[in-house]
Amino acid sequence: MRYRAGIYDVIVIGAGHAGSEAALASARMGCKTLLLTINLDTIAFMPCNPSIGGPAKGIVVREIDALGGQMGYNTDLTYLQMRLLNTGKGPAVQALRAQSDKASYGRLMKQTLENEPNLTLKQGMVEEILTAGDRASGVRTNTGAEYEGRAIVLTTGTYLRGRIIIGDVSYQSGPNGQLPALKLTDSLIDLGFSLVRFKTGTPPRVNRNTIRFEHLSVQPGDEEPLQFSFRDDIEKREQLNCYLTYTSAATHEIIGENLHRAPMFSGDIEGRGPRYCPSIEDKVVRFKERPSHQVFLEPEGRDTAEWYVQGMSTSLPEDVQVRMLRSIKGLEEVEMLRPGYAIEYDAMVPTQLDLTLETKVIKGLYTAGQINGTSGYEEAAGQGLMAGINAALSVLGREPLILDRSEAYIGVMIDDLVTKGTTEPYRLLTSRAEYRLLLRHDNADARLMEKGYRIGLLPLQRYERFLRKQALIHQEKDRLNKTKVQPDDVHALFTGLSVDQPKVTQSLAQLLRRPEVDYGKIHDLRPSEVELSDEVTSQVEIDLKYEGYVKRQEAEIERQKKLEKKELPVGISFASIRGLSNEAKERLSAIRPRNIGQASRVEGVTPADISVLLIYMESSNKQEVTNG
Amino acid sequence: MRYRAGIYDVIVIGAGHAGSEAALASARMGCKTLLLTINLDTIAFMPCNPSIGGPAKGIVVREIDALGGQMGYNTDLTYLQMRLLNTGKGPAVQALRAQSDKASYGRLMKQTLENEPNLTLKQGMVEEILTAGDRASGVRTNTGAEYEGRAIVLTTGTYLRGRIIIGDVSYQSGPNGQLPALKLTDSLIDLGFSLVRFKTGTPPRVNRNTIRFEHLSVQPGDEEPLQFSFRDDIEKREQLNCYLTYTSAATHEIIGENLHRAPMFSGDIEGRGPRYCPSIEDKVVRFKERPSHQVFLEPEGRDTAEWYVQGMSTSLPEDVQVRMLRSIKGLEEVEMLRPGYAIEYDAMVPTQLDLTLETKVIKGLYTAGQINGTSGYEEAAGQGLMAGINAALSVLGREPLILDRSEAYIGVMIDDLVTKGTTEPYRLLTSRAEYRLLLRHDNADARLMEKGYRIGLLPLQRYERFLRKQALIHQEKDRLNKTKVQPDDVHALFTGLSVDQPKVTQSLAQLLRRPEVDYGKIHDLRPSEVELSDEVTSQVEIDLKYEGYVKRQEAEIERQKKLEKKELPVGISFASIRGLSNEAKERLSAIRPRNIGQASRVEGVTPADISVLLIYMESSNKQEVTNG
Ligand SMILES: Cc1cc2nc3c(=O)[nH]c(=O)nc-3n(C[C@H](O)[C@H](O)[C@H](O)COP(=O)(O)OP(=O)(O)OC[C@H]3O[C@@H](n4cnc5c(N)ncnc54)[C@H](O)[C@@H]3O)c2cc1C
Ligand SMILES: Cc1cc2nc3c(=O)[nH]c(=O)nc-3n(C[C@H](O)[C@H](O)[C@H](O)COP(=O)(O)OP(=O)(O)OC[C@H]3O[C@@H](n4cnc5c(N)ncnc54)[C@H](O)[C@@H]3O)c2cc1C
Repeated sequence: MRYRAGIYDVIVIGAGHAGSEAALASARMGCKTLLLTINLDTIAFMPCNPSIGGPAKGIVVREIDALGGQMGYNTDLTYLQMRLLNTGKGPAVQALRAQSDKASYGRLMKQTLENEPNLTLKQGMVEEILTAGDRASGVRTNTGAEYEGRAIVLTTGTYLRGRIIIGDVSYQSGPNGQLPALKLTDSLIDLGFSLVRFKTGTPPRVNRNTIRFEHLSVQPGDEEPLQFSFRDDIEKREQLNCYLTYTSAATHEIIGENLHRAPMFSGDIEGRGPRYCPSIEDKVVRFKERPSHQVFLEPEGRDTAEWYVQGMSTSLPEDVQVRMLRSIKGLEEVEMLRPGYAIEYDAMVPTQLDLTLETKVIKGLYTAGQINGTSGYEEAAGQGLMAGINAALSVLGREPLILDRSEAYIGVMIDDLVTKGTTEPYRLLTSRAEYRLLLRHDNADARLMEKGYRIGLLPLQRYERFLRKQALIHQEKDRLNKTKVQPDDVHALFTGLSVDQPKVTQSLAQLLRRPEVDYGKIHDLRPSEVELSDEVTSQVEIDLKYEGYVKRQEAEIERQKKLEKKELPVGISFASIRGLSNEAKERLSAIRPRNIGQASRVEGVTPADISVLLIYMESSNKQEVTNG
Repeated sequence: MRYRAGIYDVIVIGAGHAGSEAALASARMGCKTLLLTINLDTIAFMPCNPSIGGPAKGIVVREIDALGGQMGYNTDLTYLQMRLLNTGKGPAVQALRAQSDKASYGRLMKQTLENEPNLTLKQGMVEEILTAGDRASGVRTNTGAEYEGRAIVLTTGTYLRGRIIIGDVSYQSGPNGQLPALKLTDSLIDLGFSLVRFKTGTPPRVNRNTIRFEHLSVQPGDEEPLQFSFRDDIEKREQLNCYLTYTSAATHEIIGENLHRAPMFSGDIEGRGPRYCPSIEDKVVRFKERPSHQVFLEPEGRDTAEWYVQGMSTSLPEDVQVRMLRSIKGLEEVEMLRPGYAIEYDAMVPTQLDLTLETKVIKGLYTAGQINGTSGYEEAAGQGLMAGINAALSVLGREPLILDRSEAYIGVMIDDLVTKGTTEPYRLLTSRAEYRLLLRHDNADARLMEKGYRIGLLPLQRYERFLRKQALIHQEKDRLNKTKVQPDDVHALFTGLSVDQPKVTQSLAQLLRRPEVDYGKIHDLRPSEVELSDEVTSQVEIDLKYEGYVKRQEAEIERQKKLEKKELPVGISFASIRGLSNEAKERLSAIRPRNIGQASRVEGVTPADISVLLIYMESSNKQEVTNG
């Protein structure tokens, strides 16, 4: 029996990584928010890697934090290990990576949701999206509860018609033996959405007590661990080690012999898997020449002997999995606690979305996370945050927040998804960002905190802390620019270095730009009068050292921005524009880009098509003027 | 595809409360043990009350500990609140009750299992019990893994063909949204077992932040909390409060109006529920005269705002549940986090078991816990422990361990189950024990530790600690018996009390037997030279004060024991014994009691039938002598 169960501003479906961020953002922005999820015991659950961050993804976590989201802080409070990756390389590719305490992470997120004012958390299985005309108006659960909402955020992850596959065994299931969502797909299809079938996979887990660590190489955490969150109230945590080993010739032989039993080759999996998170059988087939692959052994929690075997994602039959594992150095006698598996699920075709993550056909319905064809906790959280923000802004009658490709990895991801779509689970990579020198780990606050504060998500106190930091950076850069030093002053600095001695008077800033000079040297030479934190001085150093590159990228962005500013009329009929290629007509009609910039990134749209569009817009502007 | 996955001494199916104890016992006794369970994330999960202990049950936990089991220790290390119940009443009904930290309890049990030598833990769904002739020989999982085992312990809880029911909604599911075990039932039926359909239920959970605590009565923990485990290395924990409130006339009205929607009345539930854990709708119907029922509000963990609403177990529709809750004082604006539900499942008819918990028809197959028709974590753990012990003893070629009704509540429970069977989920109650003055909370160690040590489960060090304690008790009782005091010596002790002054020389022991004297007074009068712990002195006091009663119960036990010693011949054909009533013939043939004592407790067997049996045995003994 149906019953009226309550009225909310925003209803979020699913408390995974996307849904948790969406619900917190909406509630913190003042919207009365409901969060419905299948099982309260699996909130923010990590069905795969117990880790957060890494290249590009780690930067997303900082961006989430800068906007006022939860993932970074939650990670800082629960991690097992923290590492800054690529410290040897430039700041553009540096990123934090945390080994997570899986259970603690989920429990802390649950607690955060439970204690958030404005937020109501409930266990419930949503079976239908309710609509009024072309607007979403609520949801109905399997117990007949009908909740009314002005905006709905859908974040069902891998649960829609989930099906687990291990070798020749398969059964309906959400990840990790959870109940799948079997009925919601029909509701989405009834609303007119196109869905695709994707798949992803996870490796086996093993018992630490049965690993031989003696001959494996240790992967320790950083001695001075950084943190994701831009806060100063976080205590450093004791770090656990990870370990590195490799697959052997025997491993590859076992896999080769059993390929006919691999569902991805036998045809039992219809879903498309993520190219950048391939299974081990996939890697062995695709990279025949590679004699071995890296395998990382990683703890899943402080209070468990269960370890994760990174690199060995597989849906081979269970017996093959055991043999495969035992052919790896250090795992000769390993006990497998649970087998790896693949999971197939329904996902939305993301080109059905606007840049706000609102669906184009059903107003007020937003989708975020794995349902949008992505893979990864950070990708999910980033989208969830933006969907939650935009749902709230729309309920509050305010302008949406759209992040530009030059402002955030989150912007790159969403633009990629809604503009280009994806034919496989989409993962963020550094290479997807054209302005990656700007989208750095270190400056996420400078890029986004003001926005976070403006929309009412980032609390004043954290924003003020940011402003103080920026002021110090500014002051110090100013001092470095203004303070001049004579060749004689810096003599000592350069003795012993095989570089030319400076011959003219220079500012400290100019000096700092030389590759062989770091901030420490400048400090030794002419220390600042105020004491500056590492956070400030490293920012000063990066800003000054990369000023040139950054300026060039900014100029490019300016050019591109002009195109992004050229907004396409809302009702524009691409089909009737003469001169556009047929392919462009089709694609543009499907994607309905907001502006010329976005239009230029649509697949199959050529520069010639863009010229046609620009000419068309100019002439129609003129017409308007003439007509007006 | 099937594959040979390994050979073990003992295989335990299910890592609930029964299975965890069974696996630990077997492994600790030196058997190579495999523990298979559907989901490693729900080990020792509490789907209902987050609490351990209480009347009778709390004593079982002490018994488990005395034998070398885990439940008590695990509780001591994780509890939220500890209380000794019935402190005002005699020691026979006193029992400890802990409010559990649900998630921590499960995590700690998982860790304990993972780190136990001899024990292999694996995620796996068992679909078939394999046999060789009339012996269990192994199990097969859904991934085709065939594990060989010399003994199998089956502890599937409420998972066999589990079905969740909330009002008019029902779906296949294990408890708490876990995957149910759909195929194992068929295997059990194929082996010739009779199964019954039982059901149990759980109340809704609510968000603490929406409870109005102001007018509710606080239920604090004990200031000096005791512990379940007989150890001295356990730190006391900070205690959380519980709260008491009551259902109102409005609650009962809401229920009354919606009874037609209650599945237990509309006929949608076929399973039999536990009489002693009734649902609220059941209570309202059965106790029409009661204007209200107690409702306890209890935390589920230190790191969650989720609270348990004890007393409100229900399978009414979700909308009724919300209204019902909000009609209770303090819950006027409560947010329900998850609804209550009923769950139906298949259970074994326990009369198919021997007192060792081995099934009579399939040798080497033991069953324990909820599958045997019981309800409750402690009942499950107690049986699991005994099944694990007996499986191990049989593999080791040693005599089984059977606890007598006069030795342990565990003995009472198992004897009840296998001798009388049960027509509803069986729960331990103080009233089920005929010798409850002996089966006390305080003396579980004295009753069982020697047995625990003898079978190789209780470690020497803990046994020695026990022996030291017993020696101190013995010494002190001796001193109290030997030390005489004159009427004058005790004058001060009795001034102000409205009782007669002692008029003759008495031993301290005699003095202590007087109701108005406690050990403290004795201590003030003639202190012991050695310092004695509370544990010791309270034992001395109870032993002396209740000596008379205890002696009488012991005499009764002696009489009964004689009957229990009269073993019935293994192949005895009850059907052919002349003089037995037809009902007795039928029942005895089905139950196949081991001895006259057990036979006398079989339902439908009269004292006349017992006389017939005794005469029959005497004459057949004579015959044997004549024949021999
Ligand atoms: C087996 C497996 C392997 C993976 N491997 C990788 C990997 O190697 N690398 C990687 O980056 N990522 C991997 N992922 C992906 C990663 O887990 C997800 O990207 C991430 O969890 C997605 O977050 P989400 O919030 O979109 O969805 P989820 O975290 O899946 O959360 C979905 C939430 O929605 C709820 N829900 C679903 N349907 C309903 C409904 N009808 N009503 C109410 N609630 C509902 C669920 O209960 C759940 O809380 C893997 C995932 C799985 C399952
Ligand atoms: C909704 C609900 C309400 C309850 N209410 C009460 C109450 O009010 N009072 C009370 O005292 N008790 C109550 N109980 C009962 C209590 O939960 C159980 O008595 C106790 O948990 C039983 O322990 P167990 O070990 O027998 O089974 P469980 O704790 O259920 O454990 C069973 C284990 O077996 C595993 N398993 C099952 N099938 C298979 C298979 N085929 N292969 C491998 N593994 C398998 C499962 O994964 C699980 O780990 C309730 C239970 C439920 C579900």
